[in-house]
Amino acid sequence: MIPGKYLLFLGDADERLYAKTACGLIDWAPERCVGQWRLPTCGIDLGLPDMNFADAIKAGAKTLVIGITPFGGAIAPAWIGPIAAALHAGLNVASGMHMRLEAIPEIAAAAQGAGVSLFNIRVPVQSYPVGTGRKRTGRRMLMVGTDCAVGKKYSALAITRDMNSAGLKASFRATGQTGILIAGAGVPIDAIVSDFVAGAAEALSPDNDSDHWDVIEGQGSLFHPAYAGVALGLLHGSQPDAIILCHAAGRTHVDGYPDYPLPDISACIDMNLDLAARTNPEVRCAGISINTSALPENAREPYLASLQAEFGLPCFDPLATGAHALVEYLGQNLHPAKI
Amino acid sequence: MIPGKYLLFLGDADERLYAKTACGLIDWAPERCVGQWRLPTCGIDLGLPDMNFADAIKAGAKTLVIGITPFGGAIAPAWIGPIAAALHAGLNVASGMHMRLEAIPEIAAAAQGAGVSLFNIRVPVQSYPVGTGRKRTGRRMLMVGTDCAVGKKYSALAITRDMNSAGLKASFRATGQTGILIAGAGVPIDAIVSDFVAGAAEALSPDNDSDHWDVIEGQGSLFHPAYAGVALGLLHGSQPDAIILCHAAGRTHVDGYPDYPLPDISACIDMNLDLAARTNPEVRCAGISINTSALPENAREPYLASLQAEFGLPCFDPLATGAHALVEYLGQNLHPAKI
Repeated sequence: MIPGKYLLFLGDADERLYAKTACGLIDWAPERCVGQWRLPTCGIDLGLPDMNFADAIKAGAKTLVIGITPFGGAIAPAWIGPIAAALHAGLNVASGMHMRLEAIPEIAAAAQGAGVSLFNIRVPVQSYPVGTGRKRTGRRMLMVGTDCAVGKKYSALAITRDMNSAGLKASFRATGQTGILIAGAGVPIDAIVSDFVAGAAEALSPDNDSDHWDVIEGQGSLFHPAYAGVALGLLHGSQPDAIILCHAAGRTHVDGYPDYPLPDISACIDMNLDLAARTNPEVRCAGISINTSALPENAREPYLASLQAEFGLPCFDPLATGAHALVEYLGQNLHPAKI
Repeated sequence: MIPGKYLLFLGDADERLYAKTACGLIDWAPERCVGQWRLPTCGIDLGLPDMNFADAIKAGAKTLVIGITPFGGAIAPAWIGPIAAALHAGLNVASGMHMRLEAIPEIAAAAQGAGVSLFNIRVPVQSYPVGTGRKRTGRRMLMVGTDCAVGKKYSALAITRDMNSAGLKASFRATGQTGILIAGAGVPIDAIVSDFVAGAAEALSPDNDSDHWDVIEGQGSLFHPAYAGVALGLLHGSQPDAIILCHAAGRTHVDGYPDYPLPDISACIDMNLDLAARTNPEVRCAGISINTSALPENAREPYLASLQAEFGLPCFDPLATGAHALVEYLGQNLHPAKI
């Protein structure tokens, strides 16, 4: 577990989309976030107090968390000086980049000199066996998406919260760096060597009580030209009893890939069910989770209602409406005794 | 390029299936194989002269190649002593295991002491960018399979050989350790971090002449409970114009997974085409390559003929019949001017 509280490093980010880690922590673990730290060129403000390293430490911060994840996952040269300064000031540093913090000599030297720690959340801390395909006990629900960054993590967190509130046994299972920071555990699935992705996904949701649900954060999309393989390995290893289709309303193309239109929701559900059936023939789609933040406020309800009518499944926005409709549907249709 | 010639290390292998690397080298680069080296417990004989290290060096060997790939890809404790002895005798050592040879202190020390080199073929020598999905020039043909170890590498090698013999421009592109040893280059696709598999596959077959074919060795299978993600990343990144379905006649279940029946050939072609169309909508299946070695000699021709009648595609055995039927079909149906 990474020592908290956290000071969130926003660097030179110019879009909230690239501050997924910081936003996720603010939304799901606000009690651990004392402030934000920005370069003069930073174009976003997440509403936390701006703090220097000494003030953050006085406010209880123990770790500077790199809160931004630029495309490709590298540490930018402009960040190195401030990160070293934070280490010298006595903060640990946690990063979700593919590159290890220690790989940058100035950062490695600063950490050693100050006697503080570097945490590489996206570097697997253990090796995983090859997938077995063996059926496990307990129930599993996997978020699948029309694209990356459509709200799979928020969906899984909201579903877990609302299932727990309703008295159901459910655990959030993190598969990405932000989820791992929020939950304190998980597997950085996109950083696993490809031969072992399904095996790592199997390890993430081991045998459990027959009425326990693992609610698994998804990664990528089967329709993403770069990340579909990650999504398929996770789908096979998770062996979901239920998938939740996640989509961002209004998104028409794969983010960053203008030549790749998004599949429609129906095609995306069908392809996921077709492939998931290989390791769990009983898989079904249990709901549709929509990030409606791009819609006008008064368009949300009609949009969700029209999807609900089309698919006969609970359709919700994890932030705006919560996942209560799904929890009710699970109780009526996917209760362990009924499967 | 790894210095040759090679002495093939068979260790304690008890099945030819686990000596894929050694068999591949003997079949496709026999001029580079001077002998075999076996532990007393070894249960297979690949027909090369048994040689000790000194005699192998006299016969021209410069590298001991670990010719066996046990399930999971680890270096067994019983191999360490002999590998160190080979290094002390003056041989380099090349391995296709996931684990780096240097990770074993006794091997690292022996290599350093003897001033010879360790080659880790399955450890990527460079990092790869995230896939772009951008269409590349030139033609690509990818082997896809009903399972692992059905003959995808032999199919790609035979097709490349027969295309070149017919005067067509074609290059074999290796995606696994044996193919890389045979070709002298390639990408160990199953050892790439999952986020970068499609990007690595894109790098393996860069822009080329419009009448040039990259003939790409496949990996895994979309129906394999552990390796489907690898297969999908390779499929998307390769952007094949043509897929060749590879199957081992008589195999009914995923090798090592008795609970997983193989898909039928038709379902396997359809699923591959469905998914491949995401990055190349013009993809088609151009042929079926069958390893018929498990069939009686007189059953081969009727089996291939019946498949050919069912699918209307060239059906061949890369070793027993060669790929001439496919080369003819390509000229008639997939000539660059006709696509």
